[in-house]
Amino acid sequence: MSNLRAYITTSADGYVAGPNQSIENPLGEGGDGIHDWAFKLRAFRRIHGDSGGDEGPSNDFTEEQLDGIGAQIMGRNMFGGGPGPWDRDEPWNGWWGENPPFHMPVYVLTHHDREPLTLSDTTFIFVTGGIRSALDQAREAAAGKDVVVGGGAEAINQYLAAGLVDELGLNVVPLVLGSGARLFEGVGPDIELEQQKVVVGDGVTHLRYAVRSGSSA
Amino acid sequence: MSNLRAYITTSADGYVAGPNQSIENPLGEGGDGIHDWAFKLRAFRRIHGDSGGDEGPSNDFTEEQLDGIGAQIMGRNMFGGGPGPWDRDEPWNGWWGENPPFHMPVYVLTHHDREPLTLSDTTFIFVTGGIRSALDQAREAAAGKDVVVGGGAEAINQYLAAGLVDELGLNVVPLVLGSGARLFEGVGPDIELEQQKVVVGDGVTHLRYAVRSGSSA
Repeated sequence: MSNLRAYITTSADGYVAGPNQSIENPLGEGGDGIHDWAFKLRAFRRIHGDSGGDEGPSNDFTEEQLDGIGAQIMGRNMFGGGPGPWDRDEPWNGWWGENPPFHMPVYVLTHHDREPLTLSDTTFIFVTGGIRSALDQAREAAAGKDVVVGGGAEAINQYLAAGLVDELGLNVVPLVLGSGARLFEGVGPDIELEQQKVVVGDGVTHLRYAVRSGSSA
Repeated sequence: MSNLRAYITTSADGYVAGPNQSIENPLGEGGDGIHDWAFKLRAFRRIHGDSGGDEGPSNDFTEEQLDGIGAQIMGRNMFGGGPGPWDRDEPWNGWWGENPPFHMPVYVLTHHDREPLTLSDTTFIFVTGGIRSALDQAREAAAGKDVVVGGGAEAINQYLAAGLVDELGLNVVPLVLGSGARLFEGVGPDIELEQQKVVVGDGVTHLRYAVRSGSSA
């Protein structure tokens, strides 16, 4: 069966975004620089339709993470647009413009129904049935490939707590955010990790763990 | 001036001990294995008066951490014996027996007066004047060498929050504890880290950061 991989960038103190996230400040106070390590990579530029960019260990690690993925899952906050129903005068179509960097089906966890949204070769499917429904749909769409949940913290924490994650990839950056959206919040001790790979980048450390939940460990 | 280094082992979710620490279970529930990576090292065996042990990247990193240290600081919980005054029928003399692995002055943060305790070449000095008093005394004893605060989380968090730490060394092990004593708890965002060195061990990743506080950064 296709694996569920969870990939996210955290501060040294375990936050994926600072406090008081908003449309104007989607990564919260102090969180602005958390993804700087990624922006300069060739892999990042490639999925955004740009050429050039840095090669090296971080790029190799990121290309490995992009390989073999058939569908993605994200939380409502990562898709953005604030809470509440979707039917508004100017519908929120994500942060990424007309050519989002996913290029595959993306299942968005939400409490509010919305028709699928296709932008270039990315289709966002809005799932109101919870994390297992989203995973089932994503796995079917992935057709044997793996599924990635790429954020935010709450979405990944829900999948970790439910014992549904097979691989966890953390990019740890040398920031201390102090508060905000914390990875592992509400994730109990019945999770077993195995350190599989560590890659040292420039101002970032990449850690890959295999994950087993208590019931299957 | 001599630097203050903070060295500690944390779980992947940032805890240095699990919940419900006690004399019987000093590392809390689930925390038992958190230091297993260290026990097998030649450096660890050496400071405990034993020979043998593993060499390799983790041992080299640990020897670097032991080098150039003239005094240590620890919190009351790390010294152990439970809370409250020290005058009791059987005084608590630490976890380490007659030959503690420090071999230098160790300043113990406590709310209760106690005469210094010498065991072999380690002297424990009990400091009731707070973290700055302990650091001043440790620096004087260190005579130009560095000072290490080695735990627990609360002691390190206090020094971090006060902007007094110059170097932070984390040994991250692939455990998820879920709750307990969390490193960085109460440490605000006015701390700047610079990733200086990352070493990959067997079931542990060692990260060394330079630390600047907001006022000096």
